[in-house]
This record gives sequence, structure tokens and C-alpha cells, in this order.
Amino acid sequence: MRFTKMHGLGNDFVLVNCFKEEVEEPSKLATKICDRNFGVGADGLVLILPSQLDEADFRMRIFNPDGSEPEMCGNAIRCFARYLFERGLTDKLNINVETLAGIIKPQLIVNNDKVELVKVDMGEPRLKRSRIPMVGEEQDQVVGAEINVAGQEVEVTCVSMGNPHCIIFVDDIKKAPVEELGPKVEVHDAFPEDINVEFIEVVNDTEIEMRVWERGAGVTLACGTGACASTVACILNNLTANKLTVHLLGGDLVIEWDANNNHVYMSGPATEVFTGDWKL
Amino acid sequence: MRFTKMHGLGNDFVLVNCFKEEVEEPSKLATKICDRNFGVGADGLVLILPSQLDEADFRMRIFNPDGSEPEMCGNAIRCFARYLFERGLTDKLNINVETLAGIIKPQLIVNNDKVELVKVDMGEPRLKRSRIPMVGEEQDQVVGAEINVAGQEVEVTCVSMGNPHCIIFVDDIKKAPVEELGPKVEVHDAFPEDINVEFIEVVNDTEIEMRVWERGAGVTLACGTGACASTVACILNNLTANKLTVHLLGGDLVIEWDANNNHVYMSGPATEVFTGDWKL
Repeated sequence: MRFTKMHGLGNDFVLVNCFKEEVEEPSKLATKICDRNFGVGADGLVLILPSQLDEADFRMRIFNPDGSEPEMCGNAIRCFARYLFERGLTDKLNINVETLAGIIKPQLIVNNDKVELVKVDMGEPRLKRSRIPMVGEEQDQVVGAEINVAGQEVEVTCVSMGNPHCIIFVDDIKKAPVEELGPKVEVHDAFPEDINVEFIEVVNDTEIEMRVWERGAGVTLACGTGACASTVACILNNLTANKLTVHLLGGDLVIEWDANNNHVYMSGPATEVFTGDWKL
Repeated sequence: MRFTKMHGLGNDFVLVNCFKEEVEEPSKLATKICDRNFGVGADGLVLILPSQLDEADFRMRIFNPDGSEPEMCGNAIRCFARYLFERGLTDKLNINVETLAGIIKPQLIVNNDKVELVKVDMGEPRLKRSRIPMVGEEQDQVVGAEINVAGQEVEVTCVSMGNPHCIIFVDDIKKAPVEELGPKVEVHDAFPEDINVEFIEVVNDTEIEMRVWERGAGVTLACGTGACASTVACILNNLTANKLTVHLLGGDLVIEWDANNNHVYMSGPATEVFTGDWKL
């Protein structure tokens, strides 16, 4: 079975073109092929499929290493879109992709027939305290709230991008207590569904440094929804412009919170690493 | 660049046939290609090369993810030997391979043209203190020596199989302090070339459990020379018979220290996972 290995900021995927290959048991295949020692090794298996829907050009299915099928993944869909264009499956720059989270519309930013960036509409941020969700009296925005973490008062801004994020501003990203505070904030009583934790240093009006402690995963190289939530948090705190470059361990993302339609747009790279033949 | 991904007990390697491919900076390539998110992902890069020596059929070079070049790797050489036979580079069942640890002689155990197991003559263990190498007064064997690791006295047995191993016996393998002690022992002043660290629980006369902290690589699923060195250490300490099944995280190896010729033999599997084209 032919496959292509790609990554978005180090979040890596095995892509299989199901116009040419048949995958009978994708969930089972994912557990095998995602294994980093005995398989190809990846954060997910991505299937490229035709869509039955009139309004969609293609269909993306994604499977986690444990075989489960998440609704969507912002890093995976960038890889998906780049693959379609560069393999000639489409010549559209705006692609409508059917996913379990609805139709997602990645936009390709192309230079010399190479996809430089893929821009994805990440939807509207959810700001109300109950929508994060965060316990306590309802607020329209959770900005500069104080929570007590192991006896220490910590100032946080909270934003949901469909999943919950707690943003903590720091003076020096290199000294951010990611592994110390991260796991404590993640399971703090204030957050009934637990929370992702982002540490942000504002570099200037258009750049921030971010380190992330992901809910259920710990320190990761990048988190697309975390970069979106952190940009919204910067703007809510009047710290930056509404379009930022977010520097992550895995690379850079450009995030824009569009004042016209309230949507957040994420632009980032997708990189092909190798193609392979899986021995079945 | 074409490559093949193989593993021996989950200890996984990217093999490149340098009869067909040119690798100019193998150390630099290893750091890139071994990266599990941004590269192919592997415990090592293995180059298949011609040998200039009359007594060798081929030459193997191996590079760690950090770019360093170890003398030899028992799991890699099984993959190496299987690759040679199944790709038709040789029809010999006994192959002489030049390595930095000398000539290694893998023997293929073949069934229906498929390599089932590879038995490797791992040569004689080197027991003298200066041959490990380990600082201090010369000894014929380093058995039950004490070293001070961050204020704690640790009893070790040291064996070189061409590369240095420090064996620490534990009562319960599940509680072995691999990640805590491993990195400290690895760079201990007693070992001028640093050292691989094996934690061993003796199960019975013919079975041991092993966990390994590999020099330059950290925790791995298996280490062939480590299993050999650990078997020798068990015998030196009168803890087992001279032929053992070594249970590793990645699977089992059978190791025999032959009293007749003083050589250590390792038998184990080698598995091909996929072939690929590295984009560069």
C-alpha cells in the first residue's frame, strides 16, 4: 500500500490516497501503522476519499494511533489540502472538505506550483465563561481572572475554540513553568472538562512566543487551536494587533481574528517527508 | 533517496543501500532522518557498504539519532543480514560483515526463501577493566564493582561486546530506575567513553528480564549487544545457565555464551516494515 508521510509543525500523519488504495479496516490499520517502532510512526492515519456530498470536493477521515476517529484536526487538514493540490487531484485553491466536524474549507497559498501555506477557517471563538467551560458566575469574557494553583494566584484568560484553552502570560518564555504549572492548571477544579494550557510571551504587536501543555498529552511541539485561542487572548487583553505570528517549538503559525465575521483563520505549513510502500 | 525501514524487536532502523545510493554526510542525515516527527523516525541509520577487507563480504556503518557512530548494534546487524539475502545482494547464509567492532558473522536461518531468524556470532566478551573501558586499577573482570552515582553506591558488572555495557541487577524489573539512573551512569566519570546501561532481573536459570538505557539514545525497546553483555554478566555472577532467553520490551532474544570458543551467540528476528523515498 502506497502512503505519504507529512507533518504540520511536527504533528505528523500517514496519508493514504483511497482513490488508488483500498483500506478495509482503517481503525485497525491506524493502530499498526502509527506505531513508532513497529510501524511507520505517526500521530494519525489520514484517508483521502471521494465525498458523496454535492457541496464537498473530497472527504477526509482521520484515525488516532489508538484507532479512534476524531472529528477534525487542523494540522492534518493542511497536509490533506497540500497533498491534493501537489498530486494533481485538484487544481482548486479553495477546497471544500467533508469531515466529521462538517465542511472545512482550506485555502492554498501557492508559489511556483508549490503550496507555501494552507489557511484554514477555524470558526468563531467561544468566550462566555460557561462555554469554556469554567465554573463560577457567568461572564461574557474570562480575561485576567485569578485562579489559585497550589497556593499561588495565577492570572488567566480563557478561550474555547471548540476545545478549552487557558492562557497565561509570562515575561520570558524560556522561563515559563510549562511542566510545573501546566499539569496543575490542566486538572484545576475551575475547569470541569480539564483544559489545555498555553504560556505566552508577547514579543511585539504582531508576534508571540507560545509553549503548550496539551490536555491528555503534556508538552507538544505545536497546537493549532491553542495558537488560535492565544491570539484571541492577546487581542482581548489589548496586547497585540489582530493578526499574529505565533512561534511554537515546531515552527510558526499565522493567526488572524477577523473583526468582520468573528472567525479565526490559521495559516501554516504542511511538509512532505517521504513516500513509502507499506508491507501488508 | 530510497530506504528500507526494518526493526529487530522494535529497535528500528532506516537502512540505505549505498551500492545504489550516495550518502555524503551520514552523521547529519542520521539526525534528520531518525527524528520521529520531522523525519522517518528510527533508533539509527544503517548504511550498507562494500568492504575493502578481503575477509569481509560487506561493511555496515550505523549512526545514532544524535549523529554519533557506535561500533556495532546487534539488532541492526540482523536487519542488515536479512536485507542482504532477501534483496539478492548475497546468497550466502553465513555473511562476514566489517564493523567498527571488527568482523561480525551473522548466520541466516532460512525457511521458504524467507529469513526466519538471524544468529549472530557476537565475538568474545571483553572483560578486563581497561577494555570496557573503565578507569581505575586493572582487573580481569569488573564484577560487583561499586560506583558512586549522585551520592548513591551502585553495584555494577561491566562487559564490553565491542561497545561498553554496565549491568545493574534489580529485584523487580518493573521498578528499575532506568530513566533516573540510566542517564547518570551513562556519563559517569568511571567510563571515559560513556556506557550503555542494562537493568536485569533474573527470572530463573534460563530467563532474564532486561531494560536498557542506550548511550546516546536513551530508553529503547531492545539492545542486542546489551542482551549479550547482560547474559555474560549473569554467568560471571553465577546467576544463570550459559544459554538464556532475554525478555525485552520489544520481544525475546536467545543468547548463548559458548564455553568452547568463548564466543557469544545471539538469535533473534528481523522484520521489514516498509520501503520509502526520502525527499531531499
